[in-house]
Amino acid sequence: MIDQEIKKLKTHGRKDNLSPFFEPKSVAIVGSLSQTWFGGQALLKNLHNFGYSGGIYLVNPSYEEVQDVKVYPSIKDIPESIDLVIIITPARTVLSIVKDCVKKGVKCVIIGADGFTERDEEGKRLQNEITEIARHTRIRIIGPNTVGTVNTATGLVTAIYLIGYDKIKKGGIAFVAQTGIIGPQAMPYDDWRYGISKICDLGNKCDVDESDLLEYLADDPETKVIAMHLECIKSGHRFLDVAKRAAQKKPILILKPGKTKESAKALMSHTGSLAGDQKIYESAFKQVGVIQVNSFKELLEIPTAFLCQPLPRGNRLGIITFTGGAGIMAMDIAAESGLTLAKLSTETNEKLSNIHPTLVGNPSDLGPLYAISGESPYKTVIEAMLNDENVDCIFCVIVGGFLSANLYIQTLNDIEKPKDKPMTFWVYGPSSESNDQVCFELRNNGYPVYLDIETAVKALGAMYRYKTIKNWRRTI
Amino acid sequence: MIDQEIKKLKTHGRKDNLSPFFEPKSVAIVGSLSQTWFGGQALLKNLHNFGYSGGIYLVNPSYEEVQDVKVYPSIKDIPESIDLVIIITPARTVLSIVKDCVKKGVKCVIIGADGFTERDEEGKRLQNEITEIARHTRIRIIGPNTVGTVNTATGLVTAIYLIGYDKIKKGGIAFVAQTGIIGPQAMPYDDWRYGISKICDLGNKCDVDESDLLEYLADDPETKVIAMHLECIKSGHRFLDVAKRAAQKKPILILKPGKTKESAKALMSHTGSLAGDQKIYESAFKQVGVIQVNSFKELLEIPTAFLCQPLPRGNRLGIITFTGGAGIMAMDIAAESGLTLAKLSTETNEKLSNIHPTLVGNPSDLGPLYAISGESPYKTVIEAMLNDENVDCIFCVIVGGFLSANLYIQTLNDIEKPKDKPMTFWVYGPSSESNDQVCFELRNNGYPVYLDIETAVKALGAMYRYKTIKNWRRTI
Repeated sequence: MIDQEIKKLKTHGRKDNLSPFFEPKSVAIVGSLSQTWFGGQALLKNLHNFGYSGGIYLVNPSYEEVQDVKVYPSIKDIPESIDLVIIITPARTVLSIVKDCVKKGVKCVIIGADGFTERDEEGKRLQNEITEIARHTRIRIIGPNTVGTVNTATGLVTAIYLIGYDKIKKGGIAFVAQTGIIGPQAMPYDDWRYGISKICDLGNKCDVDESDLLEYLADDPETKVIAMHLECIKSGHRFLDVAKRAAQKKPILILKPGKTKESAKALMSHTGSLAGDQKIYESAFKQVGVIQVNSFKELLEIPTAFLCQPLPRGNRLGIITFTGGAGIMAMDIAAESGLTLAKLSTETNEKLSNIHPTLVGNPSDLGPLYAISGESPYKTVIEAMLNDENVDCIFCVIVGGFLSANLYIQTLNDIEKPKDKPMTFWVYGPSSESNDQVCFELRNNGYPVYLDIETAVKALGAMYRYKTIKNWRRTI
Repeated sequence: MIDQEIKKLKTHGRKDNLSPFFEPKSVAIVGSLSQTWFGGQALLKNLHNFGYSGGIYLVNPSYEEVQDVKVYPSIKDIPESIDLVIIITPARTVLSIVKDCVKKGVKCVIIGADGFTERDEEGKRLQNEITEIARHTRIRIIGPNTVGTVNTATGLVTAIYLIGYDKIKKGGIAFVAQTGIIGPQAMPYDDWRYGISKICDLGNKCDVDESDLLEYLADDPETKVIAMHLECIKSGHRFLDVAKRAAQKKPILILKPGKTKESAKALMSHTGSLAGDQKIYESAFKQVGVIQVNSFKELLEIPTAFLCQPLPRGNRLGIITFTGGAGIMAMDIAAESGLTLAKLSTETNEKLSNIHPTLVGNPSDLGPLYAISGESPYKTVIEAMLNDENVDCIFCVIVGGFLSANLYIQTLNDIEKPKDKPMTFWVYGPSSESNDQVCFELRNNGYPVYLDIETAVKALGAMYRYKTIKNWRRTI
């Protein structure tokens, strides 16, 4: 199967270094240069826009120069050493380019092209050959059928569609998925203001898989919380082993689609992989301390709470609302998420009563008082709850357009926040624009704000769950 | 309990006419005129902004004129007859005003004030007295503790907070809730472009309850779908009886909070009502053909699909995606929502194959083709699926900023749509603004577009469920 030439290059050294996928000193792009919205030209522009400062080399035998950048006929013709090659040529040409990469001493390869195991038998054969090369040499490969990686710290992006924005807020969330929708060309990361360290689409996983990536991210100092969408798991045993250790270092949220026979079968044609039994995964995830989420929305939205809020000591929820109805809905979701309603201390109720008797109790409803006096005691009520030893975490309802985003931020910043009491927020109000803006600004200032009640409360439930996972180590 | 004077007025005539709550020829507002953002002045402005053209009378003994409108010292001093009175005075004053209303021959009263059963024993006593009056006279009362009603057809609003926008798109959705967040002062209805007929916050339900309102809305020609948030049900037996008949006329979606002991207890202090047993409700709802939804988000977002799309004949789902990952997530949600994956006919697969072999199958994934050719075969693929007799409904993924909203609308309008195949859409993409705009424009043109996969697929599941409910009558 393996060329004699490749065989000579094969090594048995360490293969676990994934850093060139995220911090390459130089990048080569092999493939189409005919379009500006797609392919090499789009990728070149994306790299420039995101501020990648390493070397960029273009490879295509039909061009000599594009966007003032010299184009090389092949990988081998590039005079410098290359950390990362991104291949976006048709499937049938990929094998020989990968071989060139091995010969050139390239460290890592991202194969963007599709048409492999997910397509047909011929594609499967091609992918197997590529896998063989990865197995027998030091080269590491992500893909095929992937939009690749993002590293906000270095400005690296590998998406071959024009992204449409030029930065992602830096922070501690790593998103990993087995689908291109995780890429910056598909999701409005900058608008969301989450704070992201790294993004990776694993594609068909011919070499690098979820276990490799989880191991890498567990030790990545920029990453504080890991969110993974996994259609299949290549080696269940290894993954659970890696996950168990990683979960003690940072929270791991996983969305595992393929619950039904039909969707499991469809996985086969999506990334050419087997889904495995959901029930077995569910119970295994629980055992190793992985937190399962139930939707793509939750996978995207819950991590930001972990990033910017401390873990709670316990599961007793304080609810500060502006409408009784929302408070009761929150209680239902809280119960489903493993939280219970905090019983406020006498002292707290006295503090609330001193502002106004209608505020007493949990949920504490600010709405009636506002109607009476036109004053918002948000700060005092939040402080009273935060200082109550019977309260572990707080869900707080805020109204868009009622106070400006800046006033909310000022109010919240003024509050002395205990190191072990997370808060999440739901913003509602009569103007979508105002709600969005409050959400944007508060997130930008480190407060996890949501546009629905469910996700805001579920985020606190997930944080409490992670607290119990962290406690395992202590009790073992 | 009842004054002699009131007793004399008592009648035993029909009491079921709720239309003055939505189509009053004249409205009187009794209460505070001191603020512009809250109370009588705000309500006056809201009514003007929404285009209410009936008579408006202000009542407050401390003013002679406000905003160029004469102010009367009491209800009894108004020279004209009054259909609807909105009372926003403190709780302790409400009883005597209600008595004045009875004497004046007012048809309907909305009591906006809070501080009744939900507050304390004294409030409970006051509310009971008001209930007694409603029981013994022809007057109908909504509230207390309510933001009242909206009728988009007549421009009637009764919210006593300045709303911030001046219209709601007219359409067939009626929202009913036992919370003020349903009101236009709290939700961006106009931004959502849903198409709304009526909105009603039931408040403490001293007289008019969910059964009354459901009966009214079932016969309301403007209302095509009814969405209700019910913390408690006053007379379970009657409600189920009304719901059973109403469900054969139009779809009824219900959110029933209060699932836990704690939240059920909190209901008591919110609207002074008992939640009842969730399990019993769940099974009763199923029996009478009411569709239960699981979150406030679903209650708000699912009705629009009913409004603008036909019911499916069956539950076989066609998925048109732009990314394999989303297709598989959709399949999981479909299965949970009672849908199955359609097996496309040979003819359809041939049509898809003629465009490009990668399109064949369900989900049909347009992404790879777009990467190859830069062309979007949305129209052809949607048409092929719509014409497939094995397909009952379609979930279609669209990309914001990829085609403009107008191009999507043109493409979709050009398609001949069978009368029994609903479509829902998920829009995603790298720009929130573009996604929001596509969502806004497509909804405005009658296509149910969602910003998350879950709700889009669940909406189709709910429509199939309603189809089976409609079939009951035929099979009985």
